[in-house]
Amino acid sequence: MTAAHDHDHSHDHEHHHDHDHAHSHATPSGVYLISPSGAVADPAALDLARQRLKKLGLRTTVDRTALAVHERFAGTDAQRLAGIQRALKQKHPIVMATRGGYGLSRLLADIDWQAVADSGKLFIGQSDFTVFNLALLAKTGAVSLAGPTAIYDFGGNTVDELTCDLLMETLRSELEVLSFETQDADPVDARGILWGGNLAMVASLVGTPYMPKIKGGILFLEDVSEHPFRIERMLTQLWHAGILQRQKAILLGKFTQYRLASSDNGYDLPSVVEWLRRTVKVPVITGLPYGHVRVKATLPIGAKVGIATEAGMAHLLLREHA
Amino acid sequence: MTAAHDHDHSHDHEHHHDHDHAHSHATPSGVYLISPSGAVADPAALDLARQRLKKLGLRTTVDRTALAVHERFAGTDAQRLAGIQRALKQKHPIVMATRGGYGLSRLLADIDWQAVADSGKLFIGQSDFTVFNLALLAKTGAVSLAGPTAIYDFGGNTVDELTCDLLMETLRSELEVLSFETQDADPVDARGILWGGNLAMVASLVGTPYMPKIKGGILFLEDVSEHPFRIERMLTQLWHAGILQRQKAILLGKFTQYRLASSDNGYDLPSVVEWLRRTVKVPVITGLPYGHVRVKATLPIGAKVGIATEAGMAHLLLREHA
Repeated sequence: MTAAHDHDHSHDHEHHHDHDHAHSHATPSGVYLISPSGAVADPAALDLARQRLKKLGLRTTVDRTALAVHERFAGTDAQRLAGIQRALKQKHPIVMATRGGYGLSRLLADIDWQAVADSGKLFIGQSDFTVFNLALLAKTGAVSLAGPTAIYDFGGNTVDELTCDLLMETLRSELEVLSFETQDADPVDARGILWGGNLAMVASLVGTPYMPKIKGGILFLEDVSEHPFRIERMLTQLWHAGILQRQKAILLGKFTQYRLASSDNGYDLPSVVEWLRRTVKVPVITGLPYGHVRVKATLPIGAKVGIATEAGMAHLLLREHA
Repeated sequence: MTAAHDHDHSHDHEHHHDHDHAHSHATPSGVYLISPSGAVADPAALDLARQRLKKLGLRTTVDRTALAVHERFAGTDAQRLAGIQRALKQKHPIVMATRGGYGLSRLLADIDWQAVADSGKLFIGQSDFTVFNLALLAKTGAVSLAGPTAIYDFGGNTVDELTCDLLMETLRSELEVLSFETQDADPVDARGILWGGNLAMVASLVGTPYMPKIKGGILFLEDVSEHPFRIERMLTQLWHAGILQRQKAILLGKFTQYRLASSDNGYDLPSVVEWLRRTVKVPVITGLPYGHVRVKATLPIGAKVGIATEAGMAHLLLREHA
């Protein structure tokens, strides 16, 4: 994977991993950490994540109920909603989820989406957070980020350098093109609104007021621990609802940690991709570095982007030349 | 569980299990067996099921590709569609799925629903078959049955007598009231269209043309191997889509074979039911004998029914008095 950005348009990331993030110019000043979904099981992992974020030049403040626990959730619904409210009023420009899990779906009707958009804060998260990204886009058109969460990406034994670089360059608005290898891509050269995220969460919004009505978009999808037949069933819902066939391209990230059975008898994710192409007739591009994996891009949901493929590579144009 | 029917209005099923089904009056003459979903792994189980159905007075004919195998499916899409087409033209009045699995979702756009309704055949199945039941109702208003599938209910080591009785009495239009114990039911006395089935399949139709638009209905739901948080997420989709709050009652069948984690921390199905009541404000009745379990009712999807509760019992009125 390579990325082009302002100061060196064809720069290969593999060659500048050890530059000093803390001294990069125009680094956003800080991150407010909230837990809108699952409970944080290990507070030490959050401490570690804060140290890693600090090394990247990002000071952090932890919301006062980010470590709350109620059943499987990071506090009661009221506590998690209050955390989101506080995030709108604090000083840091970025608000990051500590982790995913489950919990945002049941809060969607109680979040003041216009207040979220008006706050000007840049929200970032993934997995369960997909419904936050998409509801904000549906209700206000505001852009937010699909990308790292504190504990998953910065609270473990290792931190992926490329994930860090892509996060910081996106936060600095320096990343122009995200180029990635693809072994299975239809020819495409298109522009549209980038949207999507976790497939199960995207599918869970179909037919609800929290689903963005995007025509001619670039839809990206990933998932974890979902059998290919379930992936296909969710894609089928998006197809039957008229959503897939209205897009200019479908980017598939990583679909990981599923287990096949002998009764699958050759049916696997490639069967689903083949079925998808045959059925929906929209260009499909695999290999997007995004999902429940270490190496992940930070992607602006709701932003206008471009996508083009050539010779085993795909190029996601994230930002126009200045 | 008790059931009231024509010849003995207050008859308790527990007391007449060994009557001779084969000589009951007005038994429908036969069943055509199709495989619209997953492949039949064990043809001997289908043979056994046919013997059991014969004992109930139901002659069977197996569609010629019911044992076909393609990947995880019972034949290619074209083969499974052709099986459904043949079912419309053969002589038996009842068409039963051999089993569930996965496979009907991707066929929905290619089935001639009006031809299915015009055939006058009575279709029966469960699990994956829910999308067939609901699409038929959405597209034509025709009634079909949620109930036993050949292999699951009649192809195993034992056959449940009550399941047999409820199937046969429903096929003979003799069953008037299905009464069942409920440990957790809101007071209700309402009438409406009965609809629903497997929750994952119901949720997978939200926002698509195959979802019936039922207002004031009696919605029944069951599922298997879905964690309570996923059950809640699917219910949330039905809520956000405006579907749950338009119903007069929600009947919960059996939710089985899920596994809790220590991180659930007390969250379980009862938490979901409590959340559902608090959130949706529609009467919820648990205990419906339906699901991926041995003892199951046969339920007419699309028929007008009544539901009433009293003193730990719920009564599903399936048929008006003559």
